[in-house]
Order: sequence, then C-alpha cells, then structure tokens
Amino acid sequence: MAEYRVPREDMQFVLQDVFQVDQDWSQSDELAELDLETAFAIIDEGAKLAETLIAPLARAADEEGVSYTDGQVTTPKGYKENFQQLAAGGWVGVTANPEFGGMGLPKSVSAQYEEMLCAADISFSLYPGLTAGAIMALDEHADSTLKSTYLENMITGQWTGSMCLTEPHAGTDLGMIRTKAIPQDDGSFAISGTKIFITAGEHDLAENIIHLVLAKLPDAPTGSRGISLFLVPKFLVNEDGSLGEHNGVVCGSIEHKMGIHASATCVMNFDAAKGWMVGEPNQGLAAMFTMMNYERLGVGIQGLGAATRSYQNALEYAQERIQGRGAKATRDTSKEADPIIVHGDVRRMLLTMKAFVEGGRAFSTYVGQQLDRAKFANDPAMRERGTALVQLLTPVAKAFLTDTGFEATVLGQQVFGGHGFIREWGQEQLVRDTRIAQIYEGTNGIQALDLLGRKVAGSRGELLKPLLEDIQTLLAEPLAGFEKEYQQLAEATQLVGEVTKSVLTRVAEDENIISSVAVEYLHLVGYVTFGYLWLRMAKAAAPLVAEKPYLASKAKTAKFYMARILPRIHSLAAVIKDGSSSLYLHEVGDF
Amino acid sequence: MAEYRVPREDMQFVLQDVFQVDQDWSQSDELAELDLETAFAIIDEGAKLAETLIAPLARAADEEGVSYTDGQVTTPKGYKENFQQLAAGGWVGVTANPEFGGMGLPKSVSAQYEEMLCAADISFSLYPGLTAGAIMALDEHADSTLKSTYLENMITGQWTGSMCLTEPHAGTDLGMIRTKAIPQDDGSFAISGTKIFITAGEHDLAENIIHLVLAKLPDAPTGSRGISLFLVPKFLVNEDGSLGEHNGVVCGSIEHKMGIHASATCVMNFDAAKGWMVGEPNQGLAAMFTMMNYERLGVGIQGLGAATRSYQNALEYAQERIQGRGAKATRDTSKEADPIIVHGDVRRMLLTMKAFVEGGRAFSTYVGQQLDRAKFANDPAMRERGTALVQLLTPVAKAFLTDTGFEATVLGQQVFGGHGFIREWGQEQLVRDTRIAQIYEGTNGIQALDLLGRKVAGSRGELLKPLLEDIQTLLAEPLAGFEKEYQQLAEATQLVGEVTKSVLTRVAEDENIISSVAVEYLHLVGYVTFGYLWLRMAKAAAPLVAEKPYLASKAKTAKFYMARILPRIHSLAAVIKDGSSSLYLHEVGDF
Repeated sequence: MAEYRVPREDMQFVLQDVFQVDQDWSQSDELAELDLETAFAIIDEGAKLAETLIAPLARAADEEGVSYTDGQVTTPKGYKENFQQLAAGGWVGVTANPEFGGMGLPKSVSAQYEEMLCAADISFSLYPGLTAGAIMALDEHADSTLKSTYLENMITGQWTGSMCLTEPHAGTDLGMIRTKAIPQDDGSFAISGTKIFITAGEHDLAENIIHLVLAKLPDAPTGSRGISLFLVPKFLVNEDGSLGEHNGVVCGSIEHKMGIHASATCVMNFDAAKGWMVGEPNQGLAAMFTMMNYERLGVGIQGLGAATRSYQNALEYAQERIQGRGAKATRDTSKEADPIIVHGDVRRMLLTMKAFVEGGRAFSTYVGQQLDRAKFANDPAMRERGTALVQLLTPVAKAFLTDTGFEATVLGQQVFGGHGFIREWGQEQLVRDTRIAQIYEGTNGIQALDLLGRKVAGSRGELLKPLLEDIQTLLAEPLAGFEKEYQQLAEATQLVGEVTKSVLTRVAEDENIISSVAVEYLHLVGYVTFGYLWLRMAKAAAPLVAEKPYLASKAKTAKFYMARILPRIHSLAAVIKDGSSSLYLHEVGDF
Repeated sequence: MAEYRVPREDMQFVLQDVFQVDQDWSQSDELAELDLETAFAIIDEGAKLAETLIAPLARAADEEGVSYTDGQVTTPKGYKENFQQLAAGGWVGVTANPEFGGMGLPKSVSAQYEEMLCAADISFSLYPGLTAGAIMALDEHADSTLKSTYLENMITGQWTGSMCLTEPHAGTDLGMIRTKAIPQDDGSFAISGTKIFITAGEHDLAENIIHLVLAKLPDAPTGSRGISLFLVPKFLVNEDGSLGEHNGVVCGSIEHKMGIHASATCVMNFDAAKGWMVGEPNQGLAAMFTMMNYERLGVGIQGLGAATRSYQNALEYAQERIQGRGAKATRDTSKEADPIIVHGDVRRMLLTMKAFVEGGRAFSTYVGQQLDRAKFANDPAMRERGTALVQLLTPVAKAFLTDTGFEATVLGQQVFGGHGFIREWGQEQLVRDTRIAQIYEGTNGIQALDLLGRKVAGSRGELLKPLLEDIQTLLAEPLAGFEKEYQQLAEATQLVGEVTKSVLTRVAEDENIISSVAVEYLHLVGYVTFGYLWLRMAKAAAPLVAEKPYLASKAKTAKFYMARILPRIHSLAAVIKDGSSSLYLHEVGDF
C-alpha cells in the first residue's frame, strides 16, 4: 500500500479559502483566540501521528485482530503504545471542553484530524472516537458530580468511553430495549441486561471504560419515550478518584467480522451493575443523540478517510503499472506499455474517487462549520441557522460520505485489478473496513428516513431552505468559464425543490411514501450538495491558482464532477417521482 | 444463513415458458433426443447435490481456507469427498463432448446447474468450472492424440484443468508475457516462466492437473500475435495412460485474499516443464478465448448465484426480524413490532435483488440459448445469428451479472443491518466472494471495452442488430396492462440506438472515446436487456398464472424493474453523451 500522505494543502484550502472559518472564529467569544496558523500547526502535528504512528500498523493490526479470553480483550500489537502517545498529546480531547482539560477545537478543524485517523486506520480511530462522543454527551447532559468525577480522565485518554444501545432484538427500534435500571437507595441504579455490537466495550488500551447505557426505569412508558441514559463505569471510582472494585459489567464475547478486525465489537453483559443517570428520566434517547449526532458526522468521515486512502493507493498504482497503450500522441514508446492512467476507464475511476474525496472533505468541513456556528457563534441568528443546517445535513454526512466512500474503496480496488483482491496490497482491507460505516450508527436507510421524514417532511420543507439559500448565494456570483455548470447546478437545485414538493404533497395520502423514496432522496440531496461545493471550490480556487499551483486541478475536477457524476440525479429523481406504488405490489407470497 | 433452496420452478419457467428451448433442441441433430422432462430431472439431481452437499460446507470452508506447504495445497475438509462425488455423477463433464464421456448438455441447461454450484459455494465451483473450460478448449483446438490422452480423465473429474495466463507484469496486456516455449526434438516443448493468480493451479482434489499455458515460441512476433497455447500436465502421462514422473511445474505459493478463501489461487513456476502445443503456433490467444468465453458466462453466473443466495437470506431475515411499524392498516399489534419487510426501504432492497436475480437468470439462459444455437442448430442462419448474439452478449453477461450480483450481495448485507457484517451469518462472505468476479477473467472495464470497442464499434453497430430485433419482436406483441412499460422499453431501445450512433460518429476523431464511456455503455445495454427480459417474462407468465401461482409475481416484479431500476439509463446516457472530454482535462500533476 502507498504510504499515507495527509492532504495538508487541501485541508488548508477548504478551511481558509473555501469556508473562511477564521471569520467565524473572530465572531465568537470562545474561539476568538484561535487563528488559522495555530489550526494548521495542530493539523500538521496530527498529520505526523497519523502518517508515522497509526497508518503503518493498520495492515498488521487487521491480520492480528482483537482477541478474547475470559472477559479480557487484547488489541493488536502497538495499539496500546499508540493510544497512549495520542492521549499524552491531548488528542483524545481535541474538541472537548477546556474547563476539563480539552483542547476545545472547533469541529471544522477536528474534522480534518478525524479524517487523518480514519484514513490511517479506521479500527484504531474508533477507540478515541467513541471516547470523544461520550465526553460530549456527558459534558452536555451529566450533572456536575458526574462531570467532575469522569470527564478529566476521559479527556486525557486515561479512561475511554463506549455507547451501549443495541440489544439482540432491538437495533434500529430502540423502543424495544429490555435492559433495566432499578433505583437504589444511594441515588444510583442497578443496571441489568445484554448489549451487543458495543464498539470498544472492552479492551486493554486504558485503565477504565465508561459506558453510556440506554436502559428502562421500572415505571418507564413503553417505546422510545421510556428510555433513560446511564453512566456505568467498568471499575467503580472511589471518593479519592482512585479505581475501586470491578463493576457488574463484563464482556461476554467479541464478534468475528468482515472488517475492522482490530476494533473490539463486544457483547456486554450488565448484571446489577452500578450506574448513574445522565440527564432526565425517560429523556435518554435525546441525550444519546447528542453523542450520536457527533458520531454520525464522525462515521461519515470514516468513509471520507477510507476514500482518501483508496485514491492515494490507486493513483500511485495507476502511475506505475504499465499495461496497454494510450492514444497515439501520448505513448511512451521507450517502455513496453503505458501507465494505466492513460486509459479513459482508469481515469474515470480515479477522478470519481478524487471528486468524492475532495468534495467529501469540503462537505465534512461545511457541516463542521455549521456545528461550530451552532455552538460558538455570538450571534443567535447565526447559531440558529447553523443548528438548522446541522439537523438537515447530519444524516446526509453520515450516509452520503459512507456510500461514496464505499464506492471509492471498491473503485480503488478495481484499479488494482487482481492485486486489489490480495490482502498484502491493503486495498481490500479498505473495502472491508468501510463497509460497516454504511451500517452502524443508524444504517444509511435510517439516515435517509431521518432526512426525508423527520427533517424535511417534518418541517414541511423549511429545514431545506438554508441549504438552498447557500446555493443561491453562489449562483448569484458567476464564475467565468463555468456558465454551463452554473446552469446545471441551478437546474439541479430546482429539481430538489420540485421533488421535495412532490413528496410533501403525497405524504398525507401515502403512509409509505417516505420510506419508499428516502434513500434516493438522500442521494439526490448529496449529489446536488457536492455539486454546489465543487463549484464553490472552483470559484474559491480561481483567483489563487497562480499563488498555489496545487489548486489548478480544482476547476478541472469540478467540470468532471458536473459532467460525469451529477447526472446521477436524473435517475434518482425519476425513481422518487414514481413513489411507493411499485414497492407495494408484492404480497408476502410473491417475494 | 438460510438453507439454500434451488429455485427449480423459476429455472423451469425460463427454459420452458420464456425461451422454449425444447423447440431449439428439436431442430438440432445433436440435441434431438433431449426433452424438457429429462433436463428438469437433471436439474433436480444437481439441485440435491448443491443443496445437501456443497452449500452446507461453504461457511466452514471459508474459515478454514486452503493451505500451502512445500508445493502442496490442501483444500478444506470435505472438499475432496464432495468433488469426487460430483465427478462420479458425471457433473464435471455436463457440457462435455459425449464422444469422450461427457453429458453433452446444452448450455441453457448447464447454466442452471452452474448457478446452483455458485450459489452453494463459489470457491468450490471453481474447481469443476475451470476443468470444464479446459475440456472445451482442448476439445475444440487440440489434436487427436492430446484429446485421446487427456479428455476422458478430465471429463470424469479424475484430472482437473487450469488456465495459466497472467504473469506478474502482464495481466490485461497479455502481449507482454515472458513465459517461453522451446521446441524439443520429440515434438514437445520446454515451458519456462512464472504465472500468477492461477485458480486451481494446485490442490488435492484430483490425481493430476492439466494446465493450459500461454507462452511464446523463440521466434514469436511481439505482442499478442506471438502467443501460443500449451498443455502442461502436472504429472506426465505414460503410454499406457498411467501417471509418470512429476513435470517441471510447481506451485510456489498461494495468495491470501479478500474472499474465495477455499479456492487455491496459485503462483505456478514452470521450469522446462514438458508441454504440447494446442492449436496452431501464435494462435494461442484465439484458442484460449474459446475457454475464456465459456468461462466469462460462467463468471457472470457466479454473480447471479451469489445474488440468489443473498436474496434468499435477506428475504428470510426480513420476514423474521421485527423492528419498527409499517403502515397502520398492516400492523400486527399482537407483536411488539412488525417484520421489517413492511418498510419501503427494505422492500426496495429485496425487490432490487429479486429483479436482478430473476432477470439475471433469464439473461444467463438467453445467452446460453444463443451459445447452443451457435453450436448445435442445424440451420446455418440460426447458428450465425446465435454466434453474433454470443459475441455481443458475452462481455455483458460477465460484467453486468457480476456488477448487479455484487450490488445484490451488498444490498442483502444491508438488510441484515449489523448482523450482515458478522461472519457467522454468512452474508458478508457473499460480498467478499462475489467481489472477485468483477475483477478476474478480464476486469469488467475490459469487458466493457470488448463490448463497445471490439464488438459494437468494430462491427459499425451491426452486432447490436439481432438484440434490437429480438426486442422489436417483443414490442410488436402488446401485453395488456403494460402499455406504459412497453413504451418505456421502446424509448430505452431507441436511446441505445442514439447513444451508439453518437459514439460511432466520434470514434474517428477521438481515440479516447471508447475507453471513456465503455462501462456506462455496457451498463446501458445491460439495463435495457434486463428490461426486455422482464417484459418478456411478464408476457410469458401472463397466460400461465392460473396454472402456476408462482408466476403471479412476474408481472409485479416487471413493473418494479421498469419503475425503479430501468431509469438508471438516464444518467448513463447523459454521461455517454458527454464523451471523453471531462476525463482528459487533468495533467499528470493534477491528480
């Protein structure tokens, strides 16, 4: 596999030139002291860790995997040292509250760091990633005692976090969970039940693990309105902060999976484990969503990271591997054949990956910027607008970045031909590792339901408006040489409006319409948003090309995207217009 | 994983009712004695083997894999017994020449048998599959001495076959191979060189392995016009037919791969190995293509078999797994939740698989029928027309059946949610095993070049005509209730014509046009052909529904296909019309 090279220039471009995030920072009390120079220096430090420490272990870690013996989970060789080095540098708490020792970085910057970790090794990235999410949920919803007891050690990476939602019979439908929380006289709860698919539920990287667990109080209403959130530490914490006895929670086994072999996916058995409620009774799902929304962009970034890696590998291979001949004018007759990058079909695959990678980076940064505005902006209107865009775009980020990410890993594998199927090249690992990102943290189908059902239909289309406004702002500022592409984007945006309206008018009469076209709708929004971001990048790059030659490709890739990828919306729109009818012709016996 | 159930009814439907293959047989001297009843009985016998013998081993065989020690390859437990039982029943030589002991079945029938083997276990299917291809190449191109020495034992499965093409530096571009064949005084050749990615190059299933090897004579012209084909046995065969000494060919190692773990993918080292020429000097590629064309449909069928399995598994899961609630009228309030098959998005995934599976089965049978006409028809015009359709459709069968097959395995995995990622469910194995089918036997990109470049552009569009005629024949016979769908197919067919014309007019001025749009073109042809086959199936089923209730779903799935899948052609056509320009904006430094 090619050595991983963090795309520092592109990260700087999106932060500085495309989104001008420093202007946002200057309008925030909490971020006023941050500047781009500092952010770039942090990115560069993180890049060194990803390139030299994390990435080189990924292949061996995949082969070795995690192992399980009597409740103990052993991670692959080198993971513990790397995790501790990361933790020592403060990298577990990059976005965490400075009050408890966090770096307090905005998400637009930490998104770059997360991308590097995922590109280097998705399995490894999950350990600090889950911890960061747990930190955020506790910071937002836990009481001061819990915060002061747990947050600092989690932010330093001395302890890690997990989120325990799924049960054997309850995945998507969390309303059905059976884990019980019985109130105790001391204000704690006795938690009992079985959770499955718990990432980093048990491991040997840190001395304690803080589980955030969904469970039901004895008198809880049925369904999702009766779920509460609890903090359950692996080891109880004494008054003086030292670790006490092992709590009633053990890892029963680990799963054997298609990929992310080095990530421990645990069955966790809670047997009257001591826990404390986080937030209000029966409001646990909302509290967990704080963590899950954070994680959902993070999972999207897994797709982006893997796509980046796939592109880098495939590009290197396509430039070195000689096979066949290109067009007459370009042939290198000093060699037996030309590098395969001369072939149209190989360029198609490489440029599709490149368009997804750089478009995806712009997208994750765009969403990151909105998260930051929602959290840090002084101006309430800016916060509100950011919040709306976050609500709209979070499911798109999770699903579209992982769907395009998976496509990119499969395309990269295809560029390698037979070698792409062989383990030693590392390309097939990217496919296996990325596949899970389309499934966990709410399947991409669920993300689509969230987008079209809860967000778009739920707001009667209102939540779409800030996105459409952003696109209109760009369309109002023509870019020379892109008349055709601007026209395309205008038409595509109009199509989103039409299609949305057509779905909304059918919602009242057709209970199945949302779930029947949601995935196509999410893809439609994703492709149009990428089109917007590609033209925005082309526009931002245009005046800078002389100064930064690296940016010369932006206009070209933008044209590629508009010509070859955006047309996918035509098929999606046709399917959405068809609605639910063709999905409900079949009776049970017809399948 | 759900138990594999061979779709016998559907196989009978395509053979008898859709393609009426028995009418062809009655017009062939060689097949005149075959009738449908016999064919169905054979399919049923094969089905029992696939269901009870082959399929149950697949999961364990994936876990165990093949192992290598000192040139020896050990296959998973049970493979040898199963292979020998298959061989004893004559199943290795299903399509082989009866003169040497083969069953002599037509391909339309054997395609059903191959589908079962692939659905049961792709890894296992490769051992008899490669042997069948080698038998065919020898039968067509070898001299009588080679045939009488080797064919019978290969047809009985006592010996197996392999095809040795790829070298480390020469995969797609076989013109660069370096393996040498030096003529010996006794009429044999000394073969030296290294071949990689050799499926079943070494194993423990049979007592001898007959390699078909591409190599170059000392005075060979450069490039692909200088390649000859040689037969190189693992053990030399004595005059009396007994096995003699080990030939100079050994397996140097095996590859560790993403999937098909139980298939031995070998590095084969030839060191002055004794071989005999098959066919004419420097005509080896053409001879090998006899085998490769046969294998290409076979590889397409791997995608179909895996899709079938994926559909069956996902369907069973979707009917059993309860999660969430469907539309009010359909809720089963006696249960905590409804089976997930009530959800539009799950139905979308299931029906997409079903449309690919049954459409794919019709397609493989359609191509099989053309292969049979090309080979067996008494009428020369029928033979010629069959040959033309085979030339056109072989690359489509290989690429489109594996691309849709891969999509079906990924969709099936998605239906399972997190369980789809766990090895014990078997669903992720289907994804890993199917992925190779898009790569080997000529990548799907190469198939697309073959279709658009060699076949369509090479014939100035002539080779398309028989397919378009078949579609027009159907369109001329209206089916009540399908007016809209017939109109759609008519428009789609016209689109193929337009797009083809537009590419052909640009070929002279644009050297890159073919390789730039070939994959989209192949998919366009694939989707339209499936549309044709779906309407043809709907038409064939209509009068039979009362008699065969199973066929009630055909009209419904046809409507689903036309509404939800066929619209993909709009995006493909847009991309093809764009041509090569957006792929060639980037200079080397821009990637």
